[in-house]
Amino acid sequence: MLAEMLQNVREKAPLVHNITNYVTVNDCANILLACGASPIMADDEEEAAEITSVCGALNINIGTLNRRTIPAMLSAARRARELGLPTVLDPVGAGASALRTETAARLLREAKFTVIRGNASEIRTLARAGGSVSGVDAGAGDKVTDENLSEAKAFAKKFAAETGSVIVMSGAIDIVADGAGTFVIRNGCPMMSRVTGSGCMLSAMTGAYLAANPGRALAAAAAATVAMGLCGELAFARMKPGDGNASFRNYLIDAVYNLSGEELERGAKYEAE
Amino acid sequence: MLAEMLQNVREKAPLVHNITNYVTVNDCANILLACGASPIMADDEEEAAEITSVCGALNINIGTLNRRTIPAMLSAARRARELGLPTVLDPVGAGASALRTETAARLLREAKFTVIRGNASEIRTLARAGGSVSGVDAGAGDKVTDENLSEAKAFAKKFAAETGSVIVMSGAIDIVADGAGTFVIRNGCPMMSRVTGSGCMLSAMTGAYLAANPGRALAAAAAATVAMGLCGELAFARMKPGDGNASFRNYLIDAVYNLSGEELERGAKYEAE
Amino acid sequence: MLAEMLQNVREKAPLVHNITNYVTVNDCANILLACGASPIMADDEEEAAEITSVCGALNINIGTLNRRTIPAMLSAARRARELGLPTVLDPVGAGASALRTETAARLLREAKFTVIRGNASEIRTLARAGGSVSGVDAGAGDKVTDENLSEAKAFAKKFAAETGSVIVMSGAIDIVADGAGTFVIRNGCPMMSRVTGSGCMLSAMTGAYLAANPGRALAAAAAATVAMGLCGELAFARMKPGDGNASFRNYLIDAVYNLSGEELERGAKYEAE
Repeated sequence: MLAEMLQNVREKAPLVHNITNYVTVNDCANILLACGASPIMADDEEEAAEITSVCGALNINIGTLNRRTIPAMLSAARRARELGLPTVLDPVGAGASALRTETAARLLREAKFTVIRGNASEIRTLARAGGSVSGVDAGAGDKVTDENLSEAKAFAKKFAAETGSVIVMSGAIDIVADGAGTFVIRNGCPMMSRVTGSGCMLSAMTGAYLAANPGRALAAAAAATVAMGLCGELAFARMKPGDGNASFRNYLIDAVYNLSGEELERGAKYEAE
Repeated sequence: MLAEMLQNVREKAPLVHNITNYVTVNDCANILLACGASPIMADDEEEAAEITSVCGALNINIGTLNRRTIPAMLSAARRARELGLPTVLDPVGAGASALRTETAARLLREAKFTVIRGNASEIRTLARAGGSVSGVDAGAGDKVTDENLSEAKAFAKKFAAETGSVIVMSGAIDIVADGAGTFVIRNGCPMMSRVTGSGCMLSAMTGAYLAANPGRALAAAAAATVAMGLCGELAFARMKPGDGNASFRNYLIDAVYNLSGEELERGAKYEAE
Repeated sequence: MLAEMLQNVREKAPLVHNITNYVTVNDCANILLACGASPIMADDEEEAAEITSVCGALNINIGTLNRRTIPAMLSAARRARELGLPTVLDPVGAGASALRTETAARLLREAKFTVIRGNASEIRTLARAGGSVSGVDAGAGDKVTDENLSEAKAFAKKFAAETGSVIVMSGAIDIVADGAGTFVIRNGCPMMSRVTGSGCMLSAMTGAYLAANPGRALAAAAAATVAMGLCGELAFARMKPGDGNASFRNYLIDAVYNLSGEELERGAKYEAE
């Protein structure tokens, strides 16, 4: 399944529209090219929906959110919904400011997303902001561990059912869930959090996997998550003395560029339920 | 000729003002430093013209166009024209949205550019938007091949004559033309399209070549195009197992940094007419 | 002292709020992660102060200044001051346009900064714009050399006393001064000016050093400056045939990632007065 999904991205070479932050935007463009897709970035309200309509997917990331681009995000997300295009929301920093939390919640209210991808804290913040009962449980630790795995899976599944979105909670253990099924993924390595943009890149790449594998959102999001985590491992294995996070970033994108379907199947570490 | 032009960039170290997209802006800055020039980026209407006036060239790129920066583009382009400074227009994504197509056409109308550089599709879109008779010929395939080379050269030459600009149509075969002469350039490699920004970097570097070689716009644009294509080949030759598009990007900029005039002469593949 | 300061950054992992330019923002994020800190970027007036209040330091850089973000800069800087958080001002391009010079001067007037870091020309421009008597001395060469070192130290010390800030004048010889003490630092290498962002990265990293070493602003700014210069030397030493400024940029960030306190002590070249 994973190999086929990767291959579909390479064969269909979907164009992914990104309205994203200016910190990691170059990495997002290069990861899309690496996996076989093509990037386009457009964040002015006057053209956002028009650009979306020539793309295979839309990826919205609020990493350097500003009031100028919020109308563009809303307009593009609505157009994507009208056209039935897959969409990804990356609520970067939800919880860090009212503007981010409220904008993320508003995006969720006004446009359903195919996938919501963030770290556990961002996802739980979003659930709380949306009034989710499960999300209100502020007592739960945010990071997913083997100890709280059952609760985290139940939370993700419930939030997925409430939103109609596939929920991707990234961390040392990744949870990918829709209302029916769940993937628990154990690929990746701690070095990924020492470079800016590994989450943003995964969101962009998830857009490509969704576009190339229509009607299979849960599996496509899981495949992208496994692929990125595995590439993190491959990149880390390539590190030599003297290398640091800048070299790791290059190796990570290089690994996505070189990843074959066979390697992806062989290196995947996940349980599906 | 090529060696001398490269050497002039290194000796004069021109300052190039870029109003450009936030996806590839860092690469544009580093490619300018690599070739021996210096970058400055300023996109607020309040300072754009003032910054232009202390520079040797202006490079305008509409890759993440937004309404905030359009007045800055117009103001800087007008100032450059008043001062007789060379200018480059990179109409990224012209044809993908009305905002891009119309803004590119408006920039052409309100400020003449020394060079217009884009892929064949962007250049043809611009020609059509400007009402060019040649451009209306939508039947012509966009990519330049050996089969349509004569037509493409004739189109570029005609559009150059109409605009008074040197036209650079980038692709597997590059065409660089003014109303009188044409360069057909066969440097470069397919890997260049697997990294974001090779076109944007060429536009920025063209600004540097124009600034350092006044009064020789056609040859300067051709020299920059040959240099970038050759550096793509050198970068590709440097790739090792495990390398992908991130490493290629670094090698490309490194190659521009290390390129000597002699290597440029030796590696150039072009016919001039 | 230096080793301890570096170690404090790694142990406390401060979150640094950056309102910065879109050219080098990715490098700033990665250098913060490399030194052991964490980056957050937020430039909308609606959230800037709120983001500052959850951070350990604020770094303001006017590299691609625009009118949209000026209110965010002012609001964040005022909040930092209320909270007693350390702040860095990087007046990129002060002197190149009235907008930059005046905004930098306004930021200085309306919010005191813990550190002002720039090249000699930017710092002198700022001194003149603020009406400093010493700054009016336009006759002094801008670059710090052994010949004008006494004058430059006296200028930095005086401007520091006037502003109540630690002044960091970066160049082949770096001067770090407050009203009482001065560090003259001779780490670094010319290659650092062939890559975009070495100054911006130092400003961001200075924010991290300030946050992790409260009450020791002069020494913290000096430690960050020594660390960055030394990493430039280490990066340069790592260059192989074929490498250029892109590889150097990666090596520079990698070196910051790998730098130990012991190496920092051993490689430091400075005199303190």
